[in-house]
Amino acid sequence: KVNKARLWDSLMEMAKIGATDKGGCCRLALTDLDKQGRDLYIRWAEEAGCTVKIDQVGNIMATRPGEDMSLPPVGTGSHLDTQPTGGKFDGVFGVLSGLEVVRSLNDHGIKTRHPIEISVWTNEEGSRFAPAMMGSGVVSGRFTLQEILDKVDVEGKRLGDELERIGYAGETPVTGRQYHAFFETHIEQGPYLEAEGKTIGVVTGGQGQRWYDVELTGQESHAGTTPMHLRTDALTCSAELILAVQSIAQQHKPGCGTVGFMQVGPNSRNTIPGKVTLSVDLRHPDDAALSDMDAQLQETVARLTQETGVKIELKPIWYYAPIPFAPQCIEAVRTAAAALGYSHMDIIAGAGHDACYVSDFAPTSMVFTPCLNGISHNEIESTTAEECEAGCSVLLNAMLQMAEV
Amino acid sequence: KVNKARLWDSLMEMAKIGATDKGGCCRLALTDLDKQGRDLYIRWAEEAGCTVKIDQVGNIMATRPGEDMSLPPVGTGSHLDTQPTGGKFDGVFGVLSGLEVVRSLNDHGIKTRHPIEISVWTNEEGSRFAPAMMGSGVVSGRFTLQEILDKVDVEGKRLGDELERIGYAGETPVTGRQYHAFFETHIEQGPYLEAEGKTIGVVTGGQGQRWYDVELTGQESHAGTTPMHLRTDALTCSAELILAVQSIAQQHKPGCGTVGFMQVGPNSRNTIPGKVTLSVDLRHPDDAALSDMDAQLQETVARLTQETGVKIELKPIWYYAPIPFAPQCIEAVRTAAAALGYSHMDIIAGAGHDACYVSDFAPTSMVFTPCLNGISHNEIESTTAEECEAGCSVLLNAMLQMAEV
Ligand SMILES: NC(=O)NCCC(=O)O
Ligand SMILES: NC(=O)NCCC(=O)O
Repeated sequence: KVNKARLWDSLMEMAKIGATDKGGCCRLALTDLDKQGRDLYIRWAEEAGCTVKIDQVGNIMATRPGEDMSLPPVGTGSHLDTQPTGGKFDGVFGVLSGLEVVRSLNDHGIKTRHPIEISVWTNEEGSRFAPAMMGSGVVSGRFTLQEILDKVDVEGKRLGDELERIGYAGETPVTGRQYHAFFETHIEQGPYLEAEGKTIGVVTGGQGQRWYDVELTGQESHAGTTPMHLRTDALTCSAELILAVQSIAQQHKPGCGTVGFMQVGPNSRNTIPGKVTLSVDLRHPDDAALSDMDAQLQETVARLTQETGVKIELKPIWYYAPIPFAPQCIEAVRTAAAALGYSHMDIIAGAGHDACYVSDFAPTSMVFTPCLNGISHNEIESTTAEECEAGCSVLLNAMLQMAEV
Repeated sequence: KVNKARLWDSLMEMAKIGATDKGGCCRLALTDLDKQGRDLYIRWAEEAGCTVKIDQVGNIMATRPGEDMSLPPVGTGSHLDTQPTGGKFDGVFGVLSGLEVVRSLNDHGIKTRHPIEISVWTNEEGSRFAPAMMGSGVVSGRFTLQEILDKVDVEGKRLGDELERIGYAGETPVTGRQYHAFFETHIEQGPYLEAEGKTIGVVTGGQGQRWYDVELTGQESHAGTTPMHLRTDALTCSAELILAVQSIAQQHKPGCGTVGFMQVGPNSRNTIPGKVTLSVDLRHPDDAALSDMDAQLQETVARLTQETGVKIELKPIWYYAPIPFAPQCIEAVRTAAAALGYSHMDIIAGAGHDACYVSDFAPTSMVFTPCLNGISHNEIESTTAEECEAGCSVLLNAMLQMAEV
């Protein structure tokens, strides 16, 4: 087992960077605060005897040497960036569990044949720059380095420039990365483990996702003089679209459909909105169902255009099919949970994780732990030191199975 | 008749201040651009022989002396502020028609018994600072000076401070203002004159308005892991509210209902929105119908709170009942239009106008002119030099009836 207090203290220390009033964290990707979090982590990793490298998309790799350095490492890791009103654990727990594994191995003087590598992946959240899981996506080849460096945030700032600005545009190539196996620890972010009273989720795969940018163009006009039947209101049309997204998801259980981002123009209370931009996020564990949700969204857009006269541009910006994890890694997590006496259940990840993309080029699985009321992407996100200890201990055990003591 | 070319040239000159790419104007109340517009107007008014005063809420009064200065002036005027994506004529036409009346009287050496006063009212649009018609509302006593000076914009800037900043916090008291009669020229901003093929709208009154600020609080949560039935989504609830506002208006013809302003928090595409703030604008020419619309809005809010679990705070921020204009002023406008041979019809103002508040303390009416396709609060707002000349000539004639040559 790992050192519960040390893991918790590190989590609380990292949470001070970008701490919010309501007990959460705002450490958006590639901001000054993200840099501070990265710097602190690198100091800790070096203090634990790791060699640190930065790659071209800003991913941080910290390596604890193995006895046979010609072997590919056994990897773990996650991300340090957060949502605008994020919690203290989403991502950070996966990074600091990796660090705690190394610290524990050091405590007990344990040597492994394979090196151990902890990675911090750039912009996992996809909130400031869309889509999500960019760092792991570039390494896996899902995205080209160039297309990611050229992404811009809502203020028009370029990801590549921001990476340079905070000093994390590294030199290690993003190509040719290898892992003997990869595990990521993460809070579940959903309600299932808590509902079933289980300590550990053995993650068998991740559901598929489709993201869209939508732009609606109506006609601005006066709110007091334009009769209702002569309006081309981009906001009432958006309202119908938002409810359609909700209904499409409800018809495809256990799928999800969300509009999380929306901007209204000119945003003046006595002008009928002429412009709305919004995001759509559709998810389903079954790819056929996800395709059906996509088709229904397209039909809805066609129907609303017809009915309202609002011009609707629906741009798909991201898609990945459901990801099955590697049987031997899933089994390693299950065996570790059982060996340590933790109650456990198989589970599918509802969120996207860097592990989903790592799984393209290495055998992968994940370890989930419960979070209070299943709430994440919220400042009140909460878990306990014991739950973190359990997840991290399962990680240690699973990694040791693969890294060969 | 007035000087068509001079009126048009002045309109085009003023339109350069805050000119937008699409041919409109963005000259929000109490910005640097508003100051530029005010400065230019004051120069013109002084060149036309007027004495200029600024009152405590920034209203500008330009007076052409009458033969008997003990008599209250015959007033006209409107506003120079615009919507964020406004047109070149809304408000400005009313101010510069007043100036053109003075210039024409000068041209012909016409003296009037009553003084003539042209006013530029502060923040008529209500876009940057809500509600609308603030300058005229303070003078009429609908608002206290202090409450208006303490209003803040969306960035928290205080109206009183902005007034100081641009040098328009004047010393003339806002109390005790008098007019023998008041007329305001304005583009109709709606489709009726054009549809009926009439040159002049004789405005018999203004419809009533109710404005609200609404704050919806749900629970932020992860877009991929939170099952649809466990969400408390402030944005899907807002979508239902937006469609309800539309439907309430549709059920109360010829009423209007609009959500023009909306902000979503945390506005991250993979977080279920926990916070939405939005505006509601309800209007009706009949006060009982407007009350009924208000009651239905309150019922909708209660029902949605119940159904969705979202906390909804509905704050009424503005109300005025429909305004009937003074029979003698309405008649003066009608007589002037007929005398000049312009086709005309009676009409009710769909928008709020400073004349509505002036009507509290002085006999008042308005002169409407058509605008292309009834479009206003839009950069493409359009009218012709001939239409402006017609409206301004009716104004001149109506004012002369009251001011006694
Ligand atoms: N784990 C997590 O919250 N990832 C963000 C990307 C997503 O929305 O799934
Ligand atoms: N005339 C005009 O557009 N006034 C703005 C206030 C309103 O929305 O009625």
